[in-house]
Amino acid sequence: MKAPVRIGIVGLGRLGQRHARNLAWHVPGATLAAACSPVAAEREWAQANLPELALHSDYESMLKDTSLDAVWLVTPTSLHTDQIIAALRAGKHVFCEKPLSLDLAQCDRVIEESARFPHLQVMIGFVRRFDASYRDAFNKISQGAIGRPFMVRSQTVDKNDPDGFFVRFAPTSGGLFLDCSVHDIDLARWMLGNPRVTRVFASGTIAIHEGLAECGDIDNGVAICEFEGGRLAVFHASRTSAHGHDTQTEVVGTGGALSVGHNPRANRVEIFDATGIRNECTPTFFERFEHAFLNEAEAFVASLTGGPATGLTLDDAREATRIGIAMRQALTKGQAVNF
Amino acid sequence: MKAPVRIGIVGLGRLGQRHARNLAWHVPGATLAAACSPVAAEREWAQANLPELALHSDYESMLKDTSLDAVWLVTPTSLHTDQIIAALRAGKHVFCEKPLSLDLAQCDRVIEESARFPHLQVMIGFVRRFDASYRDAFNKISQGAIGRPFMVRSQTVDKNDPDGFFVRFAPTSGGLFLDCSVHDIDLARWMLGNPRVTRVFASGTIAIHEGLAECGDIDNGVAICEFEGGRLAVFHASRTSAHGHDTQTEVVGTGGALSVGHNPRANRVEIFDATGIRNECTPTFFERFEHAFLNEAEAFVASLTGGPATGLTLDDAREATRIGIAMRQALTKGQAVNF
Amino acid sequence: MKAPVRIGIVGLGRLGQRHARNLAWHVPGATLAAACSPVAAEREWAQANLPELALHSDYESMLKDTSLDAVWLVTPTSLHTDQIIAALRAGKHVFCEKPLSLDLAQCDRVIEESARFPHLQVMIGFVRRFDASYRDAFNKISQGAIGRPFMVRSQTVDKNDPDGFFVRFAPTSGGLFLDCSVHDIDLARWMLGNPRVTRVFASGTIAIHEGLAECGDIDNGVAICEFEGGRLAVFHASRTSAHGHDTQTEVVGTGGALSVGHNPRANRVEIFDATGIRNECTPTFFERFEHAFLNEAEAFVASLTGGPATGLTLDDAREATRIGIAMRQALTKGQAVNF
Amino acid sequence: MKAPVRIGIVGLGRLGQRHARNLAWHVPGATLAAACSPVAAEREWAQANLPELALHSDYESMLKDTSLDAVWLVTPTSLHTDQIIAALRAGKHVFCEKPLSLDLAQCDRVIEESARFPHLQVMIGFVRRFDASYRDAFNKISQGAIGRPFMVRSQTVDKNDPDGFFVRFAPTSGGLFLDCSVHDIDLARWMLGNPRVTRVFASGTIAIHEGLAECGDIDNGVAICEFEGGRLAVFHASRTSAHGHDTQTEVVGTGGALSVGHNPRANRVEIFDATGIRNECTPTFFERFEHAFLNEAEAFVASLTGGPATGLTLDDAREATRIGIAMRQALTKGQAVNF
Repeated sequence: MKAPVRIGIVGLGRLGQRHARNLAWHVPGATLAAACSPVAAEREWAQANLPELALHSDYESMLKDTSLDAVWLVTPTSLHTDQIIAALRAGKHVFCEKPLSLDLAQCDRVIEESARFPHLQVMIGFVRRFDASYRDAFNKISQGAIGRPFMVRSQTVDKNDPDGFFVRFAPTSGGLFLDCSVHDIDLARWMLGNPRVTRVFASGTIAIHEGLAECGDIDNGVAICEFEGGRLAVFHASRTSAHGHDTQTEVVGTGGALSVGHNPRANRVEIFDATGIRNECTPTFFERFEHAFLNEAEAFVASLTGGPATGLTLDDAREATRIGIAMRQALTKGQAVNF
Repeated sequence: MKAPVRIGIVGLGRLGQRHARNLAWHVPGATLAAACSPVAAEREWAQANLPELALHSDYESMLKDTSLDAVWLVTPTSLHTDQIIAALRAGKHVFCEKPLSLDLAQCDRVIEESARFPHLQVMIGFVRRFDASYRDAFNKISQGAIGRPFMVRSQTVDKNDPDGFFVRFAPTSGGLFLDCSVHDIDLARWMLGNPRVTRVFASGTIAIHEGLAECGDIDNGVAICEFEGGRLAVFHASRTSAHGHDTQTEVVGTGGALSVGHNPRANRVEIFDATGIRNECTPTFFERFEHAFLNEAEAFVASLTGGPATGLTLDDAREATRIGIAMRQALTKGQAVNF
Repeated sequence: MKAPVRIGIVGLGRLGQRHARNLAWHVPGATLAAACSPVAAEREWAQANLPELALHSDYESMLKDTSLDAVWLVTPTSLHTDQIIAALRAGKHVFCEKPLSLDLAQCDRVIEESARFPHLQVMIGFVRRFDASYRDAFNKISQGAIGRPFMVRSQTVDKNDPDGFFVRFAPTSGGLFLDCSVHDIDLARWMLGNPRVTRVFASGTIAIHEGLAECGDIDNGVAICEFEGGRLAVFHASRTSAHGHDTQTEVVGTGGALSVGHNPRANRVEIFDATGIRNECTPTFFERFEHAFLNEAEAFVASLTGGPATGLTLDDAREATRIGIAMRQALTKGQAVNF
Repeated sequence: MKAPVRIGIVGLGRLGQRHARNLAWHVPGATLAAACSPVAAEREWAQANLPELALHSDYESMLKDTSLDAVWLVTPTSLHTDQIIAALRAGKHVFCEKPLSLDLAQCDRVIEESARFPHLQVMIGFVRRFDASYRDAFNKISQGAIGRPFMVRSQTVDKNDPDGFFVRFAPTSGGLFLDCSVHDIDLARWMLGNPRVTRVFASGTIAIHEGLAECGDIDNGVAICEFEGGRLAVFHASRTSAHGHDTQTEVVGTGGALSVGHNPRANRVEIFDATGIRNECTPTFFERFEHAFLNEAEAFVASLTGGPATGLTLDDAREATRIGIAMRQALTKGQAVNF
């Protein structure tokens, strides 16, 4: 057995805790050796719930720990690019939650800096690529199951939060498309063979959360994306569903079609009662992608210890941001954006 | 075009009205020429809702109408055999709702009498044989889609009626198995190639309607039926479902399996709300077999005017009764009944 | 019982024959009294398969039959408007297959002429409004089941015809959107409460049938349609599916969502074999809307004999054409079309 | 954090390796400290694939390791009872794969011996109790979702192995019911509140594997089980399915019903092609219960370190064997077995 990869996690919010537990207990070949959070309560959580590890309140101090091989960033998007670059300069591999950045120039900075450290890996966490069902769909398509894939329809739909908590964060989220649809954009590019985008149109509405109007955001949006070679994608993003988290994707080819998540079932239970026959829905992306987060961590750690590359590049992350920005533009202008 | 078959319907209860409407408006080659009911309100309904036709309060009087080619019996089971025999003697073809009779000797009487009138047809309405989905399943099996079929699992489940209206009719219904499972018995025999039954075991319970205990009946029952050649059937009948009418049947073969009605969906609508993702259920057998009742009438009328035989024989009807009686016996004795 | 409505059908192609059979055998209150086709073989089919009726090779001659109350047009789109106007002037009610016309000015001519004959009804056959599942969805929405509906996603997907037979008719079809999506446009307007359209964008591709390029048509298209009040629709049309005819529609509201046809199942049969668990797909719109065509005829005939209005107006038909034309324009220009 | 539970695994066949990986990498609070197998290749697998641990070829020698807190038995059924008793006498907690034994007297020996060591836990691995969907169903039922549960229908269906490899092991497997249906028996008892069994009937057939006749076994079986209080269970077990591993269970109550695994879908992918719309099936119980095996290990380890009891008792395991034996008897005799 090889020496385990020593990892320091940064950010221990809800999603950070999920990553921390995975790295601590479930990833062969990984040791969660350090955790960093400016929030005292989060450090206390780490002490109480994780195996013994070094705790830092300051990112710079953690980077000085030369025993760490990699950092695992689950921090606000606005910090991503600076933190990635600092980690690279400190000689660490980097896992960073999506999106890379809301700003193309910032994406480019990371790409340039990363090129200077070819022995260090940087992966942005497009977690759906590690979901067993999406992986199965991708493999089937690669094997020709649907002929030539030419269209993707993909949606990210979140359960409505009546409190509209997220409205307060809307001004810094980049808007609905950059916050939610980047996943779908990345999936579409992956499934369609990474074609070059040529035109984007988008539309949207505020169905419930009027407060979004202030910052020009929407709670439901749709977009069409044209790629070279006559390939197409249609996206839908929503924050107002009644039934739960409903991520689904359809890939259409010349010889068939595949869908992932056509019914966003919570599990294998069906209920027969006076309302009919029903299944419950995955409540949030947490439950939907619970196992994918683990696969993602395993894949990244494996890639650092001689395993296969994960396939995800920084260019993929940049392209998702670029298309997301164009969708926001099209929405604002009411006109298609040509590339 | 041939002269239409002139039909007289007998019994205009809820199901009788359905048959009457079909014969009046929807069956090419048929003319609903007469209707018979001892109930004045039913005759009034006929006058108001059907095309012009002769009305009778008395069955004997209707049989005297020599212009009628056939009678259509939607009457209480206890009347079936006498009415069929009278119709045959009057020179009429007969359609009769299931079951033929609750008594084997009565079935035999009809079979004997029918043999004396080979030019007259008698069909018992096992309506499921005319349902498009069951028909499709049967055809696929005939074409070898599941290899050699060796097991059927079939259920008839009715929505609970909190008033327990049916409890009052339990004493004359023949019990749960003879009232409900005859359909499943007939389906199993049809799908398995009409094998000879060798042994039956049954069990049951009163889940809700305690009043059934008085006449030895149950509101939920299960049964196992062994046929020659290692073929098997498992039946379930219930009067207490919360979700609606749920008829389903699975046929298992050596090379695959087919199911009909795995989800008893009311239609093509799905509802996404706080309870999850659901479809409504067919409320009663009326909605489930609405089109099958029409197909059945079309098939019977076609068989009288040169079309193919319907495939249903009086022996099929007798066998369903025979097995149903054995299931009731097994339930009472707590032991298997051997044939 | 009232005197039946006497109807003359015009056009006895595949769909015309379906309508003729329905009117001849299945619609209470209707008598199919005449049929008109310039094709001798079609008139022979009528003689062999329908009850006795008057046969015409010429539309003008049929209109002279003063015993007819209504005409039933199942003719090429290019003939619709002239034939409707002639029928009105001859004092007949009109049923006409969709679309009313590919040309807005022609639509307006019919609307103007129709206004001169307020006692005569003209209905364009948007058959989906008479499908039991769409009707159920509409009723549920009207009763508030999903809160305020604000988005419709709807598709018309046809099985690929490897011969590309339809390519030859593409030049006169009006293109994919006017030929197929008019149904979805009409559904969206119906479900969303007939809002005014404000902007349209469309895109498309030729996935298989290169021959369409000649006349500027596509075999797969997508479109976004913005309506007043922040309402949205997304459409998809395709002629290249591998699995069959797949019409589906989702209506999203502030309190839930409804879908019709989420799985385009052919019937209630499921097959369990080495390929997994599957159901077959409705092969064509014929099987999918078999019962809806009958409901449509019953509803139109009922509306002529004192029953409720069908709810479909000529303005609905005009609007479907208007939006379909704008979608075609947007596709050609690569830019949104504003109204 | 408490000191981890030190575990020694016994048996490293396919299922043993799964358990070993879980204990080695995925169970918080556990350390896989030893492994025992008489097979050299299995010990080599352990050395190559697991973290450093002590390897034993002999069970007695492993029991002498006083640092071990528990043993984990994934060994042939015939060894279970002796190995459990030896472990208890060596002061170890025991996890043991199902079934406890094929012999009631052996079950009783373990129960008696276990009573002498009240501080030591023995759990038999009825893995389905730890599956997220079965757990959800149980919780819903406990909360009254279906009223009073009175009937369970449950099946264990395995994909046909054309080689009939398992036929060779049939003589020592205890037969289809003891090998497969014990899971369903345990589920039924769990869901119905552990009622006392009163009568059993069973039937079965050889659909494919004629070689089973020699030892009186079958490849498809059905059984009815009556419990006190009018509760019922119906079981089905098969080794011959074409579509894969299909475990499903339905619990019927007076106010509704729940099913687990109604469609044994492999994952969230659906395929639309010329065969229709389909999903693949879970190939074996391994994939179906992958996460349940992990949950089971976590639950058992948690119960040893102050967590809640798992709820599974040795009496549960004995009862599953007792009912399974009665089902085999009923099959042989062709008569119901009364308790």
